[in-house]
Amino acid sequence: MADQVILLDFWASVFGMRARIALAEKGVGYEYKEQDLMNKSPLLLQMNPVHKKIPVLIHNGKPICESLIIVQYIDEVWKDKAQLLPSDPYDRAQARFWADFIDKKVYDVGKRVWATKGAEQEAGKKDFIETFKLLEETLGDKHYFGGDTFGFVDVALIPYYSWFYAYERFANLSMEAELPKLIAWAKRCLTRESVSKTLPDAQKVFELITVMRKRLGVE
Amino acid sequence: MADQVILLDFWASVFGMRARIALAEKGVGYEYKEQDLMNKSPLLLQMNPVHKKIPVLIHNGKPICESLIIVQYIDEVWKDKAQLLPSDPYDRAQARFWADFIDKKVYDVGKRVWATKGAEQEAGKKDFIETFKLLEETLGDKHYFGGDTFGFVDVALIPYYSWFYAYERFANLSMEAELPKLIAWAKRCLTRESVSKTLPDAQKVFELITVMRKRLGVE
Repeated sequence: MADQVILLDFWASVFGMRARIALAEKGVGYEYKEQDLMNKSPLLLQMNPVHKKIPVLIHNGKPICESLIIVQYIDEVWKDKAQLLPSDPYDRAQARFWADFIDKKVYDVGKRVWATKGAEQEAGKKDFIETFKLLEETLGDKHYFGGDTFGFVDVALIPYYSWFYAYERFANLSMEAELPKLIAWAKRCLTRESVSKTLPDAQKVFELITVMRKRLGVE
Repeated sequence: MADQVILLDFWASVFGMRARIALAEKGVGYEYKEQDLMNKSPLLLQMNPVHKKIPVLIHNGKPICESLIIVQYIDEVWKDKAQLLPSDPYDRAQARFWADFIDKKVYDVGKRVWATKGAEQEAGKKDFIETFKLLEETLGDKHYFGGDTFGFVDVALIPYYSWFYAYERFANLSMEAELPKLIAWAKRCLTRESVSKTLPDAQKVFELITVMRKRLGVE
């Protein structure tokens, strides 16, 4: 019997994009179910009763939650193609470390740039650039974070690229001027169909964040 | 050549205890280096320049940071004994989900109980009990979180047992009355030498937290 794979997701979610990229890398077909985050569906609440958040991968009726856990699950179930985590335990630990760092820092420093203004935003901008510079240093001269092959850390970070235009507009900065190697890496990732077909239009993300800023009372 | 294993740690750290329990389960000998967290050593800063936190496992000169990543690394390197993560990808995802839940919630709800007073503490207490009740529900009637065998989620949670006495004293609650099944689980874990030899004396933890409360200006 064929696998039944469903993804509960929201188009602009950097976390949801991770699952979509991993599934595309593995060539897994699935049913995409866009979720209304302002009015959560009974299915979402049933499948992720603890956090009530997307993305949720439902594989043959069983839910898997939390994006990095979903990506690891996908890597372990469909293991014969496009290995995302390296085989060596130390390299795996390093990949997990940087993916975890991205989870702990990047969304938050991004929010400090788009959801604030004035002095608060200036302080956020400093932190934002420092965080991305550290990631750029970690990338170094490698093609991808893990070396020559697109992998776990790339999947964790590349979705944010679709938010870069919004960061630039709201924080009045040039990502390419600040982070040339990271931008070159992002463009390299975009040559992969798994990434280019997943990442939404930057202008659409910018418009969404404009609405979110208004909702938060920033403008 | 024998492996050289060093652990940078602090005796009362629930995160450090996870690494110690995992190493004990695997029967790995190591050098324990107690760290002064008020005056961080050059070695700690060199080995964990990003977070500057304990625990750090140094295996043949190479550092691994972040406690759950360390436990997974230990499980993958010394894989022939006391498997901590299950083999089945879905069970692994579930184990990672609950360990991640513990990381996202338990330290923080605990701190809301020991680092506050008055109305703030009362609100924290409610959240604290809800969080632990959810964990108790997840445990259900199983021996351990993963079933019959001591595993990843048990390693992630059991260190907090050494802080229970302090929670009880500061929040004026009885963990055993609120969470009888969870306490029975904790006592079951304590029959394992890996746990009983790792967990510090609850009175000593209480004294440390009393000092931390004073430092934070709570009393």
